[in-house]
Amino acid sequence: MNNYPEIITNLIQHLKKLPGIGEKTAMRLTFHLLNSDENFVSSLGNLIINLKQKIKLCKICYNFTEKEICNICSNPNRDKTIICIVEDVNDMINIESTGKFNGLYHILHGVFSPISGITFENIKIKELFERVKNSKNLKEIIIATNPTAEGNATAVYIKDNIEKINKNIKITRIAVGIPQGAELEYIDKITLSKALENRLTFKN
Amino acid sequence: MNNYPEIITNLIQHLKKLPGIGEKTAMRLTFHLLNSDENFVSSLGNLIINLKQKIKLCKICYNFTEKEICNICSNPNRDKTIICIVEDVNDMINIESTGKFNGLYHILHGVFSPISGITFENIKIKELFERVKNSKNLKEIIIATNPTAEGNATAVYIKDNIEKINKNIKITRIAVGIPQGAELEYIDKITLSKALENRLTFKN
Repeated sequence: MNNYPEIITNLIQHLKKLPGIGEKTAMRLTFHLLNSDENFVSSLGNLIINLKQKIKLCKICYNFTEKEICNICSNPNRDKTIICIVEDVNDMINIESTGKFNGLYHILHGVFSPISGITFENIKIKELFERVKNSKNLKEIIIATNPTAEGNATAVYIKDNIEKINKNIKITRIAVGIPQGAELEYIDKITLSKALENRLTFKN
Repeated sequence: MNNYPEIITNLIQHLKKLPGIGEKTAMRLTFHLLNSDENFVSSLGNLIINLKQKIKLCKICYNFTEKEICNICSNPNRDKTIICIVEDVNDMINIESTGKFNGLYHILHGVFSPISGITFENIKIKELFERVKNSKNLKEIIIATNPTAEGNATAVYIKDNIEKINKNIKITRIAVGIPQGAELEYIDKITLSKALENRLTFKN
């Protein structure tokens, strides 16, 4: 490493700190950038610098946004009587891609995880309860945290607290079942039990 | 993708153009940066911007450098009578890491490759011949291009031309053989034939 100019060594050190990038990949990326078009490289650098400066969290749902309120919360066509609670922004993006949900979101930015040291303080859960308190006409809350131990624990906690705030809100949980196209033979027992338990009247 | 703020979408698009980074990895890196320390992120962005602006090619050997002449060429303790020709900077770094070579380098920045459209014009080969013409006291040139079809063809071309320039320079080629720790059983035929051909008197 000693023979690279300082800026190359520094860039490699920085890239190595990113997830999934080791020393070899960091070197390959650095040399690729050295041989890339100058406009592309400076535009990449500027995007990275501006990212942290321009991106804020929406004051309502904590989605990433360049404005005070995100595009979804400020869209007058969205149904404001229903809120879907998700763990992070990518979960929201994936739900949006289905085109099946026209309500609002609340992004927790994590779930309780005693092992990783993530508690109530680290996620947007007090903000959720405040939002529910101040929301009029709220009819349903869908809890769409992942069906993992942490996601389920967080879901139970949210349900208990929202019931205390307002008994008239319907609280639902996203369905656990066998994924489309999967084979029963290879499905784990818990998913299979849940899929049986959650069975619905068959419709063609 | 439509629901991300523009700067996030742009950064993902840029990252996707880097080698080995697909859409999912680009997204993961972007969200990782969003959650990273602001100083780290802006320093990463600045390093990328400065990289292309500060790094030049050494006027003698075409190594990357922040100065006109690189650290190796300007080091008075290096043996200036021997030049090792390599395909790229990483090859040089790897040779340096052995600590077994104290001469100078010449970095071609590629080898002939008709399939990829790389010809004499695209690599630093005319510059090599100019350098050899103008060098006094040059005793040996080690051709350390990779033992691939392209590397070998380039090596032959370099040898023929340097012989025309100066018959007194000893021209050598880096040895092809079985790598340390490898098992003969799994070595390809060409390497094995070369290793037999290039056998040396056994010394304890």
